[in-house]
Amino acid sequence: MGGSASDADNWHGVDATLTYYIDFVAKGASISGFPEWLPSERVVEQRVIDTLRKVFELNGFIGIETRAVETGASLLKKGETSKEIYLLSRLQEVGHESDTPIEDRLGLHFDLTVPLSRYVVEHSGDLAFPFKRWQIQKVWRGERPQEGRFREFVQADIDVIGAGELPDHYEVELPLVMVSALEELRAFGLPKATVHANNRKLSEGFYCGLGLTDIEGVLREIDKLDKIGADEVTKLLVETCGATEAQARACLELADLTAADGAELAAKFDELCEAHGIAKDSEAYTLARQGLDTLAMIVDEAAAIRPGSVIADLKIARGLDYYTGSVYETFLDGAASLGSICSGGRYDNLASQGNRKYPGVGLSIGLSRLVSYMLHTAGAHANRVSPAAVLVAVWNEEDRPAANRIAAQLRARGIATDVAPTAAKLGKQIKYADKLGIPYVWFPASATEGEESTGDEVKNIVTGEQTAADCTSWEPDTVVAQQTVEI
Amino acid sequence: MGGSASDADNWHGVDATLTYYIDFVAKGASISGFPEWLPSERVVEQRVIDTLRKVFELNGFIGIETRAVETGASLLKKGETSKEIYLLSRLQEVGHESDTPIEDRLGLHFDLTVPLSRYVVEHSGDLAFPFKRWQIQKVWRGERPQEGRFREFVQADIDVIGAGELPDHYEVELPLVMVSALEELRAFGLPKATVHANNRKLSEGFYCGLGLTDIEGVLREIDKLDKIGADEVTKLLVETCGATEAQARACLELADLTAADGAELAAKFDELCEAHGIAKDSEAYTLARQGLDTLAMIVDEAAAIRPGSVIADLKIARGLDYYTGSVYETFLDGAASLGSICSGGRYDNLASQGNRKYPGVGLSIGLSRLVSYMLHTAGAHANRVSPAAVLVAVWNEEDRPAANRIAAQLRARGIATDVAPTAAKLGKQIKYADKLGIPYVWFPASATEGEESTGDEVKNIVTGEQTAADCTSWEPDTVVAQQTVEI
Repeated sequence: MGGSASDADNWHGVDATLTYYIDFVAKGASISGFPEWLPSERVVEQRVIDTLRKVFELNGFIGIETRAVETGASLLKKGETSKEIYLLSRLQEVGHESDTPIEDRLGLHFDLTVPLSRYVVEHSGDLAFPFKRWQIQKVWRGERPQEGRFREFVQADIDVIGAGELPDHYEVELPLVMVSALEELRAFGLPKATVHANNRKLSEGFYCGLGLTDIEGVLREIDKLDKIGADEVTKLLVETCGATEAQARACLELADLTAADGAELAAKFDELCEAHGIAKDSEAYTLARQGLDTLAMIVDEAAAIRPGSVIADLKIARGLDYYTGSVYETFLDGAASLGSICSGGRYDNLASQGNRKYPGVGLSIGLSRLVSYMLHTAGAHANRVSPAAVLVAVWNEEDRPAANRIAAQLRARGIATDVAPTAAKLGKQIKYADKLGIPYVWFPASATEGEESTGDEVKNIVTGEQTAADCTSWEPDTVVAQQTVEI
Repeated sequence: MGGSASDADNWHGVDATLTYYIDFVAKGASISGFPEWLPSERVVEQRVIDTLRKVFELNGFIGIETRAVETGASLLKKGETSKEIYLLSRLQEVGHESDTPIEDRLGLHFDLTVPLSRYVVEHSGDLAFPFKRWQIQKVWRGERPQEGRFREFVQADIDVIGAGELPDHYEVELPLVMVSALEELRAFGLPKATVHANNRKLSEGFYCGLGLTDIEGVLREIDKLDKIGADEVTKLLVETCGATEAQARACLELADLTAADGAELAAKFDELCEAHGIAKDSEAYTLARQGLDTLAMIVDEAAAIRPGSVIADLKIARGLDYYTGSVYETFLDGAASLGSICSGGRYDNLASQGNRKYPGVGLSIGLSRLVSYMLHTAGAHANRVSPAAVLVAVWNEEDRPAANRIAAQLRARGIATDVAPTAAKLGKQIKYADKLGIPYVWFPASATEGEESTGDEVKNIVTGEQTAADCTSWEPDTVVAQQTVEI
């Protein structure tokens, strides 16, 4: 949650810190907070989505899509109404919205985790557990228009949900899948990503051991460390969480703790507990130690598989109250101000059916913001706007059927092809291809009417090279054959 | 629009006739009208989307995604409030919704044509015209819950928009692209699709020529022909559109007109005009003739390129008032009751900027309904739930890193791989693979601990065949390597 602006943001989970990048969204989007990409930008977004999906499926995650709406009751667990949610009303109901209690109204989902939990419970009889799923969809948040935040954006999530129980090896595997997915995006200019992991039990146990009681309050203030600094956080801990100066300093010491591996992490943590009088046989220590062991396992396993990909960072707090163990945030090298681009954690109590719980762990990429960064900072761009590699020229409207036949031949061989919109002057047709970035213009044989017929020719309008070509066998240069993303 | 239940449906354009298939949607969807697929069903939907996108891009269409919301003003052109629209309100505004005029509120888009028109005008400076785009997105309609209709569903659209003008060859090319896309879906059990084309100018000109004035009313009643029959339509034309018996019969004669090609169509139409006293030098005839010429061109061109794919059907009316020329509906062989699965038309006045118009032509597939039909009637199904081809077994939790290394090797070679969730008994691990449809279970070498070590082995759990295998070179049988859709 590095960089979120206020406490009220904390429920967001992912993508709360959008203010920073709002300036970079596609110009002309006339409704504030609802970004819309130009066609060439959409190529980049689509490529990012395709890449993530490929990695997720390679790792055995199953794709689902949930409906965009949930009931108010489901969106507002515990009756919280400070959330930024969009409720729906039918046009016919305008003026009578209040006749229906909010719990029974429909609202747009604000993340993909709450819908997943509901989906799993609803369809539990038809799923195999643990259920590993990927999901890339839009979410909506009813922010105040003037806040300049995204109110509609895309999230890309992976989660695994167990029935009854969930092995903790997923708590290291899922961040690693995300890292490998983000690694693939480096080809499009994304800097190296590092997952920062912490564990709720560790923090909570430590704070309890210190004698603090407002655990949620402490987590919320610690979450602000990167933004407002240690002095301000100390002040807030004292003023709003009932901490003494000494307790506040101890909280900051924990947040500052770093370690090269799990063993060092454990040793330093034990030292800290000893220094602050947290006994090893206390309930608080036992809880903290559970979290510590999981965190140590995560950093050691991750280091063995992909060194430097997942590190322990004891100041990661995350505002969402449904996390019960591991929590993750992900930062890009050299883009600290962007905040976390992929966050998540383990949640043991989000979904249940009678006595059966469905514990889960998952991470969510704030895709719209990531794409915004890639486009506007990392320099990712499409090699062309059109998916077509070839534009078939049309000499006269009477020749259009011949041009269409050539296009059909090329398409049948998998070469994306467009046909000139009108039988305009050749220069105008080439200009149309150029504007769309289409690299080849095809000249049907009738071009040479009047001259000696030389058959079809094809021109690479970038290099200027023009050669005789047969639409049943010609192949474009592999470098320009496909629409791609470059940096 | 074949099959829509009431006049109020007519504005829908596409997908109005959803009642019929609502029974077939994924069970357990707890909010009526918001279908949600089980993972195996989602495989089919995803494959359909991928296939359509492939065909659209092969034909040079550019993919865009528009925001899910538009202003009330944009959704309710001409101030019509009988539309079934969902309006949004922020949770914080509950009780004060009426403070904002509907025109200024945000609503969910009900189709992809209105958003496209807005997008084109907004971004006109950044687009090359004619702008050919594909778009596959959810749309929402605020139907009454008890109506049993889809309130959220996916549409797959192609449109081409011109700046100022738009050549009419697109009016035959776009239906042909849709036909070729639907043709690809026949591999998943979809019956042959035929586009039925008509032209608004033809109908309007003819009706005017007869002396009728309530043209929209006549179109609306003619639209019901398939459903309620000629006698009822005649009655309605007389009762609600001010037609005489003779005029009503003439309208039905036009609707019944069939022809093998454009020339025959023109000849029969001229006969009909003569029989009903519509003079060739009348304004009405001139208008009708414009439509007729376009329609004749469409059927002749289509017949030359793909015989039997597009036919003239003069009873196609389409309710949407924004169509100004060609109109299309598409029917599947043997699935008349499904109604049109792909509809559209030409619209010359939907978008404009100052004096500049942006005429367009496009078609829209009601994708959710189509997928529902494929799943529940055509028998399309995924060969497996999981994208993984291999499940690596885990003998002991201590062996998990070894299993992970094998999985990583396979994934690096493009083979989607999962790892067993727990080191359960082998039978349980195989059962997990079986439930997900994963065809291969990989036995790491440690399997043979105690026995003579024989290295890794892989078992096809369908055929029972088990062989020695090296994760750096082994390839799955090509038949089961990929997750596919079968019938």
